[in-house]
Amino acid sequence: MSELVKTFVEKGVFHIELHRANKKNSLIAEMYLALREALVEAQTNDKVHVILFKGGKNCFCAGNDIADFLNESVLDTDGPIASFLHELADVQKPIIAAVSGPAIGIGTTLLLHCDLVYATEQSVFSLPFVNLGVCAEAGSSYLLSRQIGHVRAAELLLFGEAFDAQKAKTFGLINDIVDSDSYWEFAQQQAEKLAAKPLQALMVNKQLMKPDNELVHQIIEQEIIEFSRLIKTEDAKTIFKKFLSR
Amino acid sequence: MSELVKTFVEKGVFHIELHRANKKNSLIAEMYLALREALVEAQTNDKVHVILFKGGKNCFCAGNDIADFLNESVLDTDGPIASFLHELADVQKPIIAAVSGPAIGIGTTLLLHCDLVYATEQSVFSLPFVNLGVCAEAGSSYLLSRQIGHVRAAELLLFGEAFDAQKAKTFGLINDIVDSDSYWEFAQQQAEKLAAKPLQALMVNKQLMKPDNELVHQIIEQEIIEFSRLIKTEDAKTIFKKFLSR
Amino acid sequence: MSELVKTFVEKGVFHIELHRANKKNSLIAEMYLALREALVEAQTNDKVHVILFKGGKNCFCAGNDIADFLNESVLDTDGPIASFLHELADVQKPIIAAVSGPAIGIGTTLLLHCDLVYATEQSVFSLPFVNLGVCAEAGSSYLLSRQIGHVRAAELLLFGEAFDAQKAKTFGLINDIVDSDSYWEFAQQQAEKLAAKPLQALMVNKQLMKPDNELVHQIIEQEIIEFSRLIKTEDAKTIFKKFLSR
Repeated sequence: MSELVKTFVEKGVFHIELHRANKKNSLIAEMYLALREALVEAQTNDKVHVILFKGGKNCFCAGNDIADFLNESVLDTDGPIASFLHELADVQKPIIAAVSGPAIGIGTTLLLHCDLVYATEQSVFSLPFVNLGVCAEAGSSYLLSRQIGHVRAAELLLFGEAFDAQKAKTFGLINDIVDSDSYWEFAQQQAEKLAAKPLQALMVNKQLMKPDNELVHQIIEQEIIEFSRLIKTEDAKTIFKKFLSR
Repeated sequence: MSELVKTFVEKGVFHIELHRANKKNSLIAEMYLALREALVEAQTNDKVHVILFKGGKNCFCAGNDIADFLNESVLDTDGPIASFLHELADVQKPIIAAVSGPAIGIGTTLLLHCDLVYATEQSVFSLPFVNLGVCAEAGSSYLLSRQIGHVRAAELLLFGEAFDAQKAKTFGLINDIVDSDSYWEFAQQQAEKLAAKPLQALMVNKQLMKPDNELVHQIIEQEIIEFSRLIKTEDAKTIFKKFLSR
Repeated sequence: MSELVKTFVEKGVFHIELHRANKKNSLIAEMYLALREALVEAQTNDKVHVILFKGGKNCFCAGNDIADFLNESVLDTDGPIASFLHELADVQKPIIAAVSGPAIGIGTTLLLHCDLVYATEQSVFSLPFVNLGVCAEAGSSYLLSRQIGHVRAAELLLFGEAFDAQKAKTFGLINDIVDSDSYWEFAQQQAEKLAAKPLQALMVNKQLMKPDNELVHQIIEQEIIEFSRLIKTEDAKTIFKKFLSR
């Protein structure tokens, strides 16, 4: 496992934390691999009933590490990102996310695979894919539109502007806005409350809610293919160059 | 028909009322059968344009009668519950529901097959399936998520906590909150207004809105199978025993 | 092209305006054909990044011209309306709509194919299909329910009552309510902002959001067939006669 992704089990809850604060918890290949392994472990460990994705404390996840994209194999359809996303879509146990600070790119799109999302007023969400000349990932092209409706999804995806917790709540992207002083504790309490319920019932109910999961996998794959193609266009190259030279 | 389910036709509206107030209008096998017959009659009677599901006065429907589940055949895939649900999903005429008081379990999930739902401030909705160690029914695993988005649906289905009319309205589960002194009358007026419109147009429009109806039937069946399996687990047995000994 | 539909390109934005103010910008066959041609041109012209559908100034579009329905071929499955709608569903570039005044029938349903919709407080939306004895078109039977949930969609489609911009926003049918003194300018600014982004990224993201586009085409076709059938019923004939003799 990676030093950058820490996990532990407590009272039936599998905690996942990101520890790359100096890079705003943006994700690199080794972290995707560690996250994938964490999900497999959480899924197979009988003591685990619920997964709590905490991201980084007060800094949820600033998205994919832009420099890491230079390593092209990261974007293979069986590479670290795709493997993590397909695993995420298949997790059978409930996933709760606790967000504060930046939730950029995949920091927002992975929330669409979570079952409950709590965020603080300090949260800043964004889907800046178009502005980078690429496309959305994690199945979010489809999942976002399904969850919040087309025109709201198009606004967030095409303009790529940051939005706050209030908008996220109004749109139904998150469940609630919670106190920033104790948001990890609150999410943990909710996770433990859920973990005390019959595990089989939790898992079956979650699975029955997702009859379109096969489509989600297809979209994840299509997006990765388009993303890999778009990142090589002149538009994207120019944008990434500018971004990396900042 | 059953004494517990009363129906009559007035001004093109087929009224359905539950009369099992001493058990909070919870449903038993004979009521499911009567409700199914009522829907068939409403569908085939040319004088009927609209169905008005009123539940019980000030006590909509407290869900499945828990004791009745001990009779296993209730849960057969061609048993009374399944037959009622498949019929409900196939009704071609508009259905309006008028809710006040408890709308528990199927009292909430059947609303997902209604076209218009009016509820009073006194309404209390809940989906306590997980807490009973079982899974949701009536296609609600899919329909709820489709109608209100995944994280909101997961909150209601996984935690199974009661929620009020205000939350139901914000989430788009009901159309409006109406005065509790006259909610049956209000719903009746709305039903009569709709019944005065061209019947063919009403029916065609309703059908065109449901291109996924085949999937709904599949989910209803899958849920019944999982429900029957889960109710025999140790978790569920313990919970039901405790519940029945109260 | 038709005098009634004016188009021009400016700063990457393809403007589409309706100019039939004396008939509240209701649509007749020649306008559907011109609109279809306009979409094809916008799609193929490399200078165009974004389409701005402005309708008529302060009078977006009062729906299909009722008298024009007497010409039955308008409703053929390969007639002017169907051809326009299928083209609209296939446009790959983002479409922004700017609404003020009446947006009736197709004036509302075509918004479901737009990616961003801005409307003024003076906007009046309505879906009066049932009241005319016919059914909805433009795939709206499906798209409306998908975007705003079944009970809200049923309310708008079955009752067919007018609703305002506030309701449209709450339901997630439009993105924002904007100042009526400058709503065309505001929508133009948004369109130009979008047009400045990488075109490939915009187009790919839009396409990925619509994995159900084949179903949308099917519904458009089914609706046209049902519409043609319903318009010949006694109910509809009586209503249209009354309407045209006003």
